[in-house]
Amino acid sequence: MPMMDEAALTAFLARDFAQVADQFAVEAVGEMTARIRLKVAEQHLRPGGTVSGPAMFALADVAVYLAILAQVGPRALAVTTSCAIDFMRRPASGVDLIGACRILKLGRILAVGDCLIFQDGLEAPVARASLTYSLPPESASSPSSSPANG
Amino acid sequence: MPMMDEAALTAFLARDFAQVADQFAVEAVGEMTARIRLKVAEQHLRPGGTVSGPAMFALADVAVYLAILAQVGPRALAVTTSCAIDFMRRPASGVDLIGACRILKLGRILAVGDCLIFQDGLEAPVARASLTYSLPPESASSPSSSPANG
Amino acid sequence: MPMMDEAALTAFLARDFAQVADQFAVEAVGEMTARIRLKVAEQHLRPGGTVSGPAMFALADVAVYLAILAQVGPRALAVTTSCAIDFMRRPASGVDLIGACRILKLGRILAVGDCLIFQDGLEAPVARASLTYSLPPESASSPSSSPANG
Amino acid sequence: MPMMDEAALTAFLARDFAQVADQFAVEAVGEMTARIRLKVAEQHLRPGGTVSGPAMFALADVAVYLAILAQVGPRALAVTTSCAIDFMRRPASGVDLIGACRILKLGRILAVGDCLIFQDGLEAPVARASLTYSLPPESASSPSSSPANG
Repeated sequence: MPMMDEAALTAFLARDFAQVADQFAVEAVGEMTARIRLKVAEQHLRPGGTVSGPAMFALADVAVYLAILAQVGPRALAVTTSCAIDFMRRPASGVDLIGACRILKLGRILAVGDCLIFQDGLEAPVARASLTYSLPPESASSPSSSPANG
Repeated sequence: MPMMDEAALTAFLARDFAQVADQFAVEAVGEMTARIRLKVAEQHLRPGGTVSGPAMFALADVAVYLAILAQVGPRALAVTTSCAIDFMRRPASGVDLIGACRILKLGRILAVGDCLIFQDGLEAPVARASLTYSLPPESASSPSSSPANG
Repeated sequence: MPMMDEAALTAFLARDFAQVADQFAVEAVGEMTARIRLKVAEQHLRPGGTVSGPAMFALADVAVYLAILAQVGPRALAVTTSCAIDFMRRPASGVDLIGACRILKLGRILAVGDCLIFQDGLEAPVARASLTYSLPPESASSPSSSPANG
Repeated sequence: MPMMDEAALTAFLARDFAQVADQFAVEAVGEMTARIRLKVAEQHLRPGGTVSGPAMFALADVAVYLAILAQVGPRALAVTTSCAIDFMRRPASGVDLIGACRILKLGRILAVGDCLIFQDGLEAPVARASLTYSLPPESASSPSSSPANG
C-alpha cells in the first residue's frame, strides 16, 4: 500500500510546491500508480487553443513524481534526470488533462515511471511520457529536492 | 544560407507566438543552427530558485522550431512529435539560459534537431534535448501550426 | 479485430525476415497489442550471461512492428524512426524475454507504441521502450520496407 | 587528457568484450570524445542490405561507453540505463559506420553522452543517440560491469 494517500499528497503539493499546486489535482493513488489532473487554464494554452507541450511535460513530471512520493513517503526526493515524451494527438481547447502513471522501477538510486496523458473523458491518449529520477541516499532529508517542474 | 535571419525570426515570434515571445530572444541563426535565449524570470523558477524542467523543455522546443523555420521560411510548420531530454546539472537561479541547437535532418515529412542548454557564460551544459517535428505537405499554409510550446 | 493473427504474423516473419525469424516467437496478438518472445541464445548474451542491450532493443522493435502489422495487414510498412528505452533490471542468464506491447497511435503517417520487456515468468519488467514508425502512403506496396531490426 | 588512449581501449575491448570486439575499431580518443568504427558485416544487415537498428544501437552504446572509460580509466563501469535514438537516414549497404560521440556529463553516479552515427565518408548523419550510464561507487572494482551491448 502507498505510504501517502490523496489527501497527504495534496497537502504536500500545497506546502512544498505552492507555486504550481493550484494547477494540479490528485485524483487517485494506488499501488505504484497515480492519477493527476491538470486543471487547464489560459496559461497552459498556445495560439489555436490547444494545451502547450511544456504544460503536458509538466503534468507527466508532476504525476510520476507524486506517484513515487506516494510509495516512499514525504522524504526528500531527487530530481528528474530524463524524460522521453511523444505527442500523439492535438488536445482540444479548454478540456482538463489527466496523467495516468505507473512506477516501473523504484530502486535505491534510480526510479523509472511512465505516464499516459488523456483528455478528460476521452479514451485515446494525447501523449505518452517516460521519466527517470535520481533518488538521494535514504538518510538525506533536505526539503529542497523537487521535480523538474515543481 | 538560412531563409530567415535573426530579425525575421524575431518578428515571426512576436506575431505568431505573442503569448511567449517576450520570454525568448533570437541570438544567432546559421546554416542549420540557431542560438536562442530564455530570459529567465520568476515564472520559470521553482522553489529553491532553479529553472524548472518545463521552462527548459520550452526553450529546447522553441530553439529547434525556430532553427527549422529559419531554413524553410515562414510557411506553416508541423507540430512537435517527440522530445527526449536529459537534465544534467541544476541551473543557478536568476541566470538566463541559452539553447544552442542544430538541425540534423530536414526531410520531406520529418525534421530532427538537438539542443544543448547552457547557463549564460558557463561551459558545462545543464541539459540536452533532441526533438522531432512532423512537417506538413509543402502546399499547406495554415497559420495555425505551431511548436508544442508556442 | 486485428487483420493478422498469430499464424499470419509468424508466416510473415519467416518469409520477410528470414535472417532473424528463428529468434522470435509470436505468442499472442490482440486489439492494438502483441506479445512476442525472444528465444534467448548464446548470440544474445554478453559476458556475465545477461541479455545484451541490442537484443532487448531488437525485441522491442520487432514486437511493436509486428503489433502494427497485425492491425494494418501485410502491406509495406515504414521504418523505425525513433526509440527511447530504459534498462531497469539486469536479466538473468538463459531465460527467454517477453515483449508485451501496445499501439498508442496508428495515424496516417506515424505510429507510436510502447513495450514492456519481462523475463519469462517474472513480474518486474527488465526494460521498457517506446518506439515511433513512419508509415508509407497507403498506395505504397514495396516489400522492402522493414523494422530497424529486421 | 583521457586516461586511456586508442591502444589501451582496444586492448580493453579485446580482453573484456571478446564476443564483440572484432566488430569495432577504436579510431580516435580525445578530451571527452571518442570515434568508434562499426566494421559492417553480414550479421549487421537486414533484408535489403541496410544496417539494422540493433547494430546502430550497439555502435552508439559501445562508443559512449568507451568514451567514458577513456576518461575514468579501466575501473568497473556501470550499466547503460537509457538510450534515446533517432534513425534519420537509411544507411547504404556494405559501408562501415562511424560513431562520433562526446561525454556531456561525467558525474559521481550518472554519466550522459551522445553520439552521431555516420556512414564512412558521408557528411549527413544516419542516426543520433543519447545515452545515460549508472556509475558504480569509486571503490567498486568488479570486472563484471559492462555496457548494455558488451
